[in-house]
Amino acid sequence: MIKKISLILMVLLLIPSMTTFATTSQELAPIVDSIDMAWMMLGAFLVFFMHAGFAMVETGFTRSKNALNILMKNMMTISIASVLYFLVGYGLMFGDTLGGFIGTSGFLLQGHTDQIGFFVFQAMFAATCATIISGSVAERMKLSSYLMLTLFMTGVIYPVVGHWIWGDGWLADLGFVDFAGSSVVHLTGAVGGLMTVLVLGPRIGKYAKGKVNVIPGHSIPIGALGVFILWFGWFGFNGGSTLAADTSLVPSVIATTLLSASAGVVASGFYSYMKFKTMDATLTLNGALAGLVGITAGTANVSPIGAIVIGFIAGIILVEAVQFFDRILKIDDPVGAITVHGICGIWGTLAVGLFAVEGGLFYSGSVALLTTQLIGVLSVILWTSIATGTALYAVTRLGAIRVSREEEVTGLDFSEHGSSAYEATNSIYNENLEVSHEFGVGLLKRLDGIEHKRTETSQ
Amino acid sequence: MIKKISLILMVLLLIPSMTTFATTSQELAPIVDSIDMAWMMLGAFLVFFMHAGFAMVETGFTRSKNALNILMKNMMTISIASVLYFLVGYGLMFGDTLGGFIGTSGFLLQGHTDQIGFFVFQAMFAATCATIISGSVAERMKLSSYLMLTLFMTGVIYPVVGHWIWGDGWLADLGFVDFAGSSVVHLTGAVGGLMTVLVLGPRIGKYAKGKVNVIPGHSIPIGALGVFILWFGWFGFNGGSTLAADTSLVPSVIATTLLSASAGVVASGFYSYMKFKTMDATLTLNGALAGLVGITAGTANVSPIGAIVIGFIAGIILVEAVQFFDRILKIDDPVGAITVHGICGIWGTLAVGLFAVEGGLFYSGSVALLTTQLIGVLSVILWTSIATGTALYAVTRLGAIRVSREEEVTGLDFSEHGSSAYEATNSIYNENLEVSHEFGVGLLKRLDGIEHKRTETSQ
Amino acid sequence: MIKKISLILMVLLLIPSMTTFATTSQELAPIVDSIDMAWMMLGAFLVFFMHAGFAMVETGFTRSKNALNILMKNMMTISIASVLYFLVGYGLMFGDTLGGFIGTSGFLLQGHTDQIGFFVFQAMFAATCATIISGSVAERMKLSSYLMLTLFMTGVIYPVVGHWIWGDGWLADLGFVDFAGSSVVHLTGAVGGLMTVLVLGPRIGKYAKGKVNVIPGHSIPIGALGVFILWFGWFGFNGGSTLAADTSLVPSVIATTLLSASAGVVASGFYSYMKFKTMDATLTLNGALAGLVGITAGTANVSPIGAIVIGFIAGIILVEAVQFFDRILKIDDPVGAITVHGICGIWGTLAVGLFAVEGGLFYSGSVALLTTQLIGVLSVILWTSIATGTALYAVTRLGAIRVSREEEVTGLDFSEHGSSAYEATNSIYNENLEVSHEFGVGLLKRLDGIEHKRTETSQ
Repeated sequence: MIKKISLILMVLLLIPSMTTFATTSQELAPIVDSIDMAWMMLGAFLVFFMHAGFAMVETGFTRSKNALNILMKNMMTISIASVLYFLVGYGLMFGDTLGGFIGTSGFLLQGHTDQIGFFVFQAMFAATCATIISGSVAERMKLSSYLMLTLFMTGVIYPVVGHWIWGDGWLADLGFVDFAGSSVVHLTGAVGGLMTVLVLGPRIGKYAKGKVNVIPGHSIPIGALGVFILWFGWFGFNGGSTLAADTSLVPSVIATTLLSASAGVVASGFYSYMKFKTMDATLTLNGALAGLVGITAGTANVSPIGAIVIGFIAGIILVEAVQFFDRILKIDDPVGAITVHGICGIWGTLAVGLFAVEGGLFYSGSVALLTTQLIGVLSVILWTSIATGTALYAVTRLGAIRVSREEEVTGLDFSEHGSSAYEATNSIYNENLEVSHEFGVGLLKRLDGIEHKRTETSQ
Repeated sequence: MIKKISLILMVLLLIPSMTTFATTSQELAPIVDSIDMAWMMLGAFLVFFMHAGFAMVETGFTRSKNALNILMKNMMTISIASVLYFLVGYGLMFGDTLGGFIGTSGFLLQGHTDQIGFFVFQAMFAATCATIISGSVAERMKLSSYLMLTLFMTGVIYPVVGHWIWGDGWLADLGFVDFAGSSVVHLTGAVGGLMTVLVLGPRIGKYAKGKVNVIPGHSIPIGALGVFILWFGWFGFNGGSTLAADTSLVPSVIATTLLSASAGVVASGFYSYMKFKTMDATLTLNGALAGLVGITAGTANVSPIGAIVIGFIAGIILVEAVQFFDRILKIDDPVGAITVHGICGIWGTLAVGLFAVEGGLFYSGSVALLTTQLIGVLSVILWTSIATGTALYAVTRLGAIRVSREEEVTGLDFSEHGSSAYEATNSIYNENLEVSHEFGVGLLKRLDGIEHKRTETSQ
Repeated sequence: MIKKISLILMVLLLIPSMTTFATTSQELAPIVDSIDMAWMMLGAFLVFFMHAGFAMVETGFTRSKNALNILMKNMMTISIASVLYFLVGYGLMFGDTLGGFIGTSGFLLQGHTDQIGFFVFQAMFAATCATIISGSVAERMKLSSYLMLTLFMTGVIYPVVGHWIWGDGWLADLGFVDFAGSSVVHLTGAVGGLMTVLVLGPRIGKYAKGKVNVIPGHSIPIGALGVFILWFGWFGFNGGSTLAADTSLVPSVIATTLLSASAGVVASGFYSYMKFKTMDATLTLNGALAGLVGITAGTANVSPIGAIVIGFIAGIILVEAVQFFDRILKIDDPVGAITVHGICGIWGTLAVGLFAVEGGLFYSGSVALLTTQLIGVLSVILWTSIATGTALYAVTRLGAIRVSREEEVTGLDFSEHGSSAYEATNSIYNENLEVSHEFGVGLLKRLDGIEHKRTETSQ
């Protein structure tokens, strides 16, 4: 009888304590989910804001006559990418895999409405990849052709790379490490940009009379603001890629991101000073982006000191590679996007194989991870160049992808948008009292007259 | 005795396990509060930052000679609104209701210091409503008159609408749905702007010699940056309106916000292209805002596909309505604020009655919600137009609310602030070695001379 | 036997319930840590973004010919400071104390890798302190000398002040209150700026022919954007300084920050209007910063009404002190940084002694706290002026810290970076078809020719 009582008692008493335990665990999960969701959303907001950064960098570093056009390209890219990634891209990237190559389910988030927050975060990345191209092709590519290419880029090309590495793909299985996307996002975008630039050719006047001409941007302060915004947003790009407010991961990711970007600025600033006897402003500003792209793959895998070294080398690579593309290869990349996102993207991906605390050559003495990283880089380049090439072939069948020589000289703002990004006449006396509806046309004629007079006078 | 022991034992053992349970629940509440508070504060920060967006949009989309003035109006609005909302507005909006019409307690947060975080979040919304007006009245309204109107707007007019819908008011009781403020914030601001513009009249030269003249903005890149900042901030505007880091609500709200804004850009871009044979830059940029205002009321109530449709329609409405106000009604709204916030605000509020997953016409087949939404819209328009009209009557008793013709032509920066927003002379050779204290005056005279000479020469 | 069973039973049953209790508590701690970490990281991101604000304020409020230079100084400061604070500064500030004067451990975070998140947050503050100087010395200090001074500032001078007040230092022991750094960050930076300006002297033309000349900024919209960004970032500066998502502290901190900044704008706007019969734009914009610096020390210790009063007074102090430095002391501080960060920093620190709900003179009737605050202020001024003076002595041994008269007149962008921040020729017709690699040189010569012609014509 006592045993019986004891047993009953035991059961009775165990129930509440077990219940307590169960209830508690059930209550904790949604709280943890809530924090992680808030963290990922903050990350998504910041990556969205990077599009303001890209828009400002590309606008500031190019000429004022093409400012409207570059703004439209950036604004359209984030918008088209968001909708298209919802309809198609997300499913191709994160759907059930077809042989590790491509996803096949979850289009319009069907059956996956619980992943809607993750979708938002990932959509911002898809748009980032596409917008990198707009910088490389600036000042000469037709808006319509660019937008068609964006459809291919965000609809298919990027999602496939994403599936390989971040989805249930073959590179993920291989152990390829690209934490926040040095290859997935940046290298893919840069290779797409390079392919398009090869088809487009350089801007008029860039390589004229056997000389390599510098075509300076029209507002470096706007460009510098863009760099600050990109750096700010990158904390969400790398920090949010943890997908959770993980105390063991996030602070370290933010620290390596900060230190690598800082080292990139210091390196490009002083290296440009040593090389040119003057601290080049655009190279120094791009140094921050070089350091950021460089750390993106390994941000969660390297030490703070590793991050400083990676960023420093990225800053030096930047200066040399920009020169190499511009002067030796004669590839005209107005904002240096191919170097920043492509060359530094490759460096960042390989750097994981060197500096990763677990598996990196300098820590483990093994080249296994480095080899995997190299395979990943080559695969991304191969796929993206073939796919973008195919897309470009399709787009060029519909007509020229480059504006006419006359349109380019006049500026894409007037030829594609019938307007100007800036007040053309004196800022204090600009009355527009009689300015006709055909503002652009009239303005152009008037300026034309003035210009001709000037030329006559000065000759 | 054994029973006794067993009972004592039972009690003894139950106490700790029950205690454990109680303690746990007590411990969880503050943690949940902490997350929700952090989320709402993030929302408040982002809505604050929207004021930078408004300032940049309004500055970039108007002429450089009025840039200082519009910046001052925006900076003053957020500042006056914050203090006044603390003193008066919050109490009128969220205090104990007087018949569902107006709040009557909680001024200076007396007795409600625990709501200080909620106050901050709401103060940002009050300021947003008021600052919408500054765009409509740009380039001609006296700063002093504008500031007096701001007192009425943030002190009384907006809090009353807010009380009706978000406080303990009659429209809330009726089941009116305006999740983040398509009507409360945007329509109210737009109606206030429209009333003021009707009193002010169009800018000099806008409708001259029987023609509708376009008066282009002086820096579209700055304006585009403003649009990006507004979109970025809107994630806090809509996302923070959940008032909690609610995993069942927030990701969906962010997704609908993103998709509607994106669809707005795509729609206004391509629709303007079809209509004008060129993709209009300011309309496309405003398309993002149209999509954002459009989704604000129903952000938590519609599906992602519903959001795309709402945003797309908002983008088309924008293009047509801007034309209608500008060309047919001849109402001069420099930055298109009345259309963006008013017409798209109405559309967004009514769209809830169509697209709400629960109660929307397309889902439920019932017009009940749509009718309520219509009643709400009409009520907001009625109240705001009467109240703003009364306020304007009071302000006009104190003198003209419009600057003189001479001041308008010279620019409000010189006439109201004695200065210029930009360096007037060549940027490289601007030495200011001898520039006198009366910079503005001297500059004006000098330019005057140059201008006269030019006119003489060209004639 | 029964007792035995009972005892076994008791032990058996107590274990799970105790285990439950223990597990629960263990589970809650990391969740709380996670929220607090996320909050502090958000704060760090926002303080990082303040550097974009500083860069825009300083660029917009100075002349276009020095824009590249000021951008480089700001970008370099955050980069050098981050790396140096990791290597040295953090250890000096938060390491084991040597007599309350300086920290002596934790360099490279050795033995403190768990503090890496806190390090990131603090690094942003160190960089803020240093970048304040760049505004004061704008338009005339050599980049190389400025960078050397930055090494001293972020490597030693700031960490020592930080150790005294926020580390295990003597002022902390004394009960000195500086919640988010009116003294630690802002006063320290301003004193450093003042000392350097005293060595540098005023810009050419500032005090010419017995007159005090106004040298207006070249883009107030960019400057105003900077002020908005700084205000936005300040929510992280003050809000993040709670180091935790503490519901009892954070909302109040954000409210006092918002209200003080708002009151600062209102005060400086209307006071400048009363004084000059026109609402001065740069003073009004600086009024926001005055209110923000003013509330930073006491943000967690004063009431909302106290915050309004503190900010209002800060706004008035600003107008008077800017005039006093500029006209009476003839100290040329291009962006008003010494007043904003120094004088308002002193005011904010002392205001804690007056308005602190606990210990402030107006609440407690005791001058004890006020006295401590005064001691703190004087100590920070004494240390920083001596230390910066010593650093400047060292730097001047290496050569002149000021650019040559010719370089200053030409602009630092050309002389130090061989380029220009803006397109120099007409924005629509700027082709650069034949622009040589030596862009700057050619441009200058061409403009030189034009300038000479103009001068001849007008004479």
